[in-house]
Amino acid sequence: MTTPHNTIPASLSQITLMMSPRIRRSPFYEATVRDGVSHFTVYNKMLMPTSFGNLEAELQRLMSGVAMWDVAVERQVEVSGPDADRLVQHLSARDLSKMRVGQGKYVAMCDHQGRLINDPVLLKLSDRYWFSLADSDMLLWVRAVAGEGNFDVNVCEPDVSPLAIQGPKAEDLVAKLFGQHIRDIKYFGCIETNLQGIPLVLCRSGWSKQGGFELFLRDGSKGDTLWELVKSQGQEYGIGPGSPNHIERVESGLLSWGGDTTPDSNPFEANMGKYVDVNTSVSYIGKAALQRVAAEGPQRLLVGLVLDGTAPSAWPLVERVAVSANGEVVGTMSAVIYSPRMGRTIGIAQIQRTVVEAGDRLLVHAPNGVQGATLSPLPFL
Amino acid sequence: MTTPHNTIPASLSQITLMMSPRIRRSPFYEATVRDGVSHFTVYNKMLMPTSFGNLEAELQRLMSGVAMWDVAVERQVEVSGPDADRLVQHLSARDLSKMRVGQGKYVAMCDHQGRLINDPVLLKLSDRYWFSLADSDMLLWVRAVAGEGNFDVNVCEPDVSPLAIQGPKAEDLVAKLFGQHIRDIKYFGCIETNLQGIPLVLCRSGWSKQGGFELFLRDGSKGDTLWELVKSQGQEYGIGPGSPNHIERVESGLLSWGGDTTPDSNPFEANMGKYVDVNTSVSYIGKAALQRVAAEGPQRLLVGLVLDGTAPSAWPLVERVAVSANGEVVGTMSAVIYSPRMGRTIGIAQIQRTVVEAGDRLLVHAPNGVQGATLSPLPFL
Repeated sequence: MTTPHNTIPASLSQITLMMSPRIRRSPFYEATVRDGVSHFTVYNKMLMPTSFGNLEAELQRLMSGVAMWDVAVERQVEVSGPDADRLVQHLSARDLSKMRVGQGKYVAMCDHQGRLINDPVLLKLSDRYWFSLADSDMLLWVRAVAGEGNFDVNVCEPDVSPLAIQGPKAEDLVAKLFGQHIRDIKYFGCIETNLQGIPLVLCRSGWSKQGGFELFLRDGSKGDTLWELVKSQGQEYGIGPGSPNHIERVESGLLSWGGDTTPDSNPFEANMGKYVDVNTSVSYIGKAALQRVAAEGPQRLLVGLVLDGTAPSAWPLVERVAVSANGEVVGTMSAVIYSPRMGRTIGIAQIQRTVVEAGDRLLVHAPNGVQGATLSPLPFL
Repeated sequence: MTTPHNTIPASLSQITLMMSPRIRRSPFYEATVRDGVSHFTVYNKMLMPTSFGNLEAELQRLMSGVAMWDVAVERQVEVSGPDADRLVQHLSARDLSKMRVGQGKYVAMCDHQGRLINDPVLLKLSDRYWFSLADSDMLLWVRAVAGEGNFDVNVCEPDVSPLAIQGPKAEDLVAKLFGQHIRDIKYFGCIETNLQGIPLVLCRSGWSKQGGFELFLRDGSKGDTLWELVKSQGQEYGIGPGSPNHIERVESGLLSWGGDTTPDSNPFEANMGKYVDVNTSVSYIGKAALQRVAAEGPQRLLVGLVLDGTAPSAWPLVERVAVSANGEVVGTMSAVIYSPRMGRTIGIAQIQRTVVEAGDRLLVHAPNGVQGATLSPLPFL
């Protein structure tokens, strides 16, 4: 049966991408083609699978089994050298003075005006840091800051390509692959290891709330070997290919930087306030601007919307749509899906704070018509 | 008749892009869909048309008539304010001390190690500068440099979207639209003007060697109106839609930054040496590194390749391929097309300088087999 969450609407299959050497392919590209990838996006100037043609099965694996995702587009900016600690702190709106080797932290990278310019997971390895990036070219940013400030560091994009293993059975599979000690790894904790000689960093992370790990492959020539190894060892858990899941991420309120945020959003407007340290003694880029926002409160908030009715809505948006209250535009909605678990159509929107605090009823101006909506905190589930 | 330059191979039509708000659409998007766009690329996180399904007609219009291209992906970084002159010079590896309002210049933007990080056309308007960008996020770079150096400037991405009018009849059409005075505009010269009230900057520029102008639309809500106006006024010249033409740009040796360059290329390795001032008294980012390269000579050169035989080759590459000489890899080829004007298959490659100077015969390791090739200077035509 065709349900709203297992078909990709034709409107999302109209864009044929002409490839060129300017857009990179992942070390897992050939494997994903063999396994039936049907749709891609471009992220950090690189192809990323977004579906293998059966959204229902992809969601099912994530929610109750285990899925493997090519997320090589999460590029790393590596910082090493004598001034690495000082530079990484300068770039991060979070007190890192107690960060230990083997830890990861979710950090807001902001510009001097406090705008959120990326929301990476920062990994501290034995002799280097990795910013594991969302979709903006932070290599330019980090090199500019390092160069203008004469930091004694080396900044590069290493040959590192994450493969995510996600879902409730992910830990069992990763324990089978690496040994039972991996069960002790804390959230965002990471170890430098290898799998049958393939060098990698293993981290308890991934862009879902269903649990799992990311294998940061450190040798792009081994992409195909790693994919097949994980796939074969995962057969007993019913593993299959997928991608960061749009339904689960909206239900879980996971931030899509550049999707849910606008170019002038600050971290408080992106629900990242709890990761921003404004009362610390350490200094970092944007601190003064962020202290002002913290004192005054953000102008806008990222919230959930529950759309009226139970009819499934058009699935994913191709562009932001206006949201109004009392006849005035008060924000934009950046994602909308039908949640099978909730039986409702839900979305993520950036809305003026005063409107959120008043709890006003909202109207969503979607391409297929105007629809009423009620505010909801994030995450939904 | 099907010829090698009017069909798009199936291998280039296999990637279906799933849209999301993270990838922007151009103000001309709806118009290009109406006019039959068939393929896109993603450039500066935005869709750009790459074909309207008939490459032969698109090339013909560019070479002997007039074509209109949606090049809104050429995003602008705008710099204004008291320190704008000083910051723009700091960012540009070229002496700008004599640059006048109304002039444009092709500039190499380099990092502190002399790597080429963008190759924009810089426009000097009455009260601001625009860097009209290739495919890298220089807004981050410019803001980092401005913020760390405490420059008193405003740096933003304005609502500006170029529409290119290219081909030998482009000047006649632009004169019809704006008046005969536009014939006096010099290469890269620009004027602030409007068209039936639509605000824009008119510049003699465009990514072809067939002549033409770019209309920098300053109000994205007027994209459809501008497109239809240009289209209707261009009927007598046989105007039609197109896109930066892969055949013409390879014949003309126009640089595709990020396509022909590698992440560590310097401007001398990208044939931009004549635009780099190393003996000037002004200082800029990367100057010391570029002086060293100028003194020692670049390690690699961007050259043309003429492939053996007259059989047309696989058209455009989806990734860089290795080039070897005497059994050793000596570089990579980044573009290959069949040139109807030359009756030969030609390419662009980055090759070790010593090999170029020796004039060695080369082998191209294409997916469909190994093919011999002879070095040629750029441009071919």
